[in-house]
Amino acid sequence: MKKNVRQLLMIPGPTQVPVEVLLAGAKPMINHRSKDFKAVFEYIIKTLQKFFQTKNDIFMLTSSGTGAMEACASNIIQPGDKILVATIGNFGNRFAKIAAAFGADVEKLSFDKGKPVDVKVLKERLAKDTKKEIKAVIFQQNETSTGVLNDVKSIAEVVRAHGALIVVDAISGFLAADLRTDEWGLDLVAAGSQKAFMVPPGLAFVSVSPKAWEVIEKTKGTSFYFNLKTAKEFAPNGETPWTPAVSTAFSMQTALKMLEEEGMESIFDRHRWLRDAVREGVRALGFKLMVEDDKYASPAVTAVIPSEGIDVEKFRSQVRSDYEVVLAAGQSELKGKIFRIGHLGYCDQKDILATFAAIEMTLKTMGYKVELGKSVKAVQESLLSKVKVAA
Amino acid sequence: MKKNVRQLLMIPGPTQVPVEVLLAGAKPMINHRSKDFKAVFEYIIKTLQKFFQTKNDIFMLTSSGTGAMEACASNIIQPGDKILVATIGNFGNRFAKIAAAFGADVEKLSFDKGKPVDVKVLKERLAKDTKKEIKAVIFQQNETSTGVLNDVKSIAEVVRAHGALIVVDAISGFLAADLRTDEWGLDLVAAGSQKAFMVPPGLAFVSVSPKAWEVIEKTKGTSFYFNLKTAKEFAPNGETPWTPAVSTAFSMQTALKMLEEEGMESIFDRHRWLRDAVREGVRALGFKLMVEDDKYASPAVTAVIPSEGIDVEKFRSQVRSDYEVVLAAGQSELKGKIFRIGHLGYCDQKDILATFAAIEMTLKTMGYKVELGKSVKAVQESLLSKVKVAA
Repeated sequence: MKKNVRQLLMIPGPTQVPVEVLLAGAKPMINHRSKDFKAVFEYIIKTLQKFFQTKNDIFMLTSSGTGAMEACASNIIQPGDKILVATIGNFGNRFAKIAAAFGADVEKLSFDKGKPVDVKVLKERLAKDTKKEIKAVIFQQNETSTGVLNDVKSIAEVVRAHGALIVVDAISGFLAADLRTDEWGLDLVAAGSQKAFMVPPGLAFVSVSPKAWEVIEKTKGTSFYFNLKTAKEFAPNGETPWTPAVSTAFSMQTALKMLEEEGMESIFDRHRWLRDAVREGVRALGFKLMVEDDKYASPAVTAVIPSEGIDVEKFRSQVRSDYEVVLAAGQSELKGKIFRIGHLGYCDQKDILATFAAIEMTLKTMGYKVELGKSVKAVQESLLSKVKVAA
Repeated sequence: MKKNVRQLLMIPGPTQVPVEVLLAGAKPMINHRSKDFKAVFEYIIKTLQKFFQTKNDIFMLTSSGTGAMEACASNIIQPGDKILVATIGNFGNRFAKIAAAFGADVEKLSFDKGKPVDVKVLKERLAKDTKKEIKAVIFQQNETSTGVLNDVKSIAEVVRAHGALIVVDAISGFLAADLRTDEWGLDLVAAGSQKAFMVPPGLAFVSVSPKAWEVIEKTKGTSFYFNLKTAKEFAPNGETPWTPAVSTAFSMQTALKMLEEEGMESIFDRHRWLRDAVREGVRALGFKLMVEDDKYASPAVTAVIPSEGIDVEKFRSQVRSDYEVVLAAGQSELKGKIFRIGHLGYCDQKDILATFAAIEMTLKTMGYKVELGKSVKAVQESLLSKVKVAA
């Protein structure tokens, strides 16, 4: 028998979506080559430019975030080009594969899981590239698989000094953490609708700097679907080259209005505030945080290493079946070793409180040692101590 | 002042979407790696197999139809491969460009606008390929830019005799006209959500025959996002490799249920019935049909050549502003010379009747010679004469 219980989606995307945004996506269909769509398109791009903190071109793609990564790679890579991927996890590794698929000579600069890119190491590597062979450096703003927030500003500084293109996969961290496209000189930035934008998946976004355009213009590029030169031709008419996900664009329009009203700084504060509460809750459970250093703790997702002896996948399944609280699994070799709590987008303090209460009760039901209320109290204290930040 | 008037979307996709389907897309977000999504995924694939009339694998992509075309091309093409594109218009030409983007040695076999692929000519071309260098033949089921329905069965017969892969872009014609994937031996078939499926844009589908798999397995393929081998790895778990357009999948699920209830034959009948009525209406207006031969007239879209002296773009704009009836423009060199009436998906006889009434009234308002009611009557007579087909 299916119980009528609201599900609490605590994964790092797709996130929960406000009903207003869901219903905006249910508006009647319109022609994607019309003044109606043009108005939606132009509002989205203009508002994204604010949130990307950029004057650069921004393009809207109908795809998942991985499509935006493919757009970045395929538009700048010619076979044989040297690309450096500074990877700290699964999504860094994915970007390396994408670059390789388009023929790049990919070098991976890998760092330990749970740690950010070591800027010193990156600097040393780039210093060795005296012939300036490295065409682009790719890295994540936020590594979703481990919950690490990179220091994008410092990484970008080092790459800028070298001269390579700066390509940032900001899909899971965008709007959860500050990202100053122009000030930090980011050439290509990828984002996706299903994260802090509070929108269903289906749209992805890429910003392109003038310096990136210089490279793109000279690059033949393989992908037809993700060709940014084609997107640039259609943009002045308020159109995408191919039929866009119109409904998701409606949702995006409504969500952006809600986010504009809240204001960017408040959105960042809110994410940090919830992150801090989650981290206190995890500590009070006696579990370990995959990211020990608060400075690099993701405001979008927290990776948790439960105490020894806890069957992580069984626990995830139980908290789902008993409370309809959905936690994310570990990815690749972290599967069964960690779980992840997404706290981005349309997530509030009530959700965090309920999640920790449910985690405690599930652990108790499963027979593990747990003090009911302890982690909830830690979450409460954290939330109250910083309430002004979010107010 | 914006008037509160319902818009009538008479373009060849995105089509009108039933409210039930729109609201299904507004359901709360779920984890895309969960039993919830698996159930949606499996229902969609299983039902699509019925409508594709195939036992082949079918994959769901988060993209527009052009993405499905890219998936077909990028998974079978190695640089230098010889690909024959039998093109009868804009979308045939687009597929040729996509194949070329992935390094194919593309040969275009072009036919006049408004005409289908001449099977005899194709047969002769293939007969000359004694060394069997042509790896695949690509063509449209339905050419959206001119409203031509190709004779897929006969084309496929000829290609099968040669041995090349048969790649069908069925995006705009799928479910509007019969397409027997297995019986006709179609290796790769592409479809999109925003056509006769009555679903918003954002999902595309590709079916893959065992023969196509043999080629795909041997092909390195450039695209990472559209890699079908990766999609095949994830499918048994009811997942897509990258985050799918979950909301559009909800809509697809609901629409497929409605379409299953109607039954495939009835869907085909309905589309033919409306097409015939549209054609009678156009004739009664004294306008010309771009596709003269009824046999090749698309059941999805009709291209209309208005009488000399009519400013087509001004007329389209006027019928939109006065009646909120949205007609499609001509594409490329046909822009300003034709307009197109979409009559696929969630389109019914009332829509066709209203469209012709509005066309007549607009022509009169604009000062062109027109007899009010004449084309409407022709539409009525056509609809009544074939009412049993659709009942």
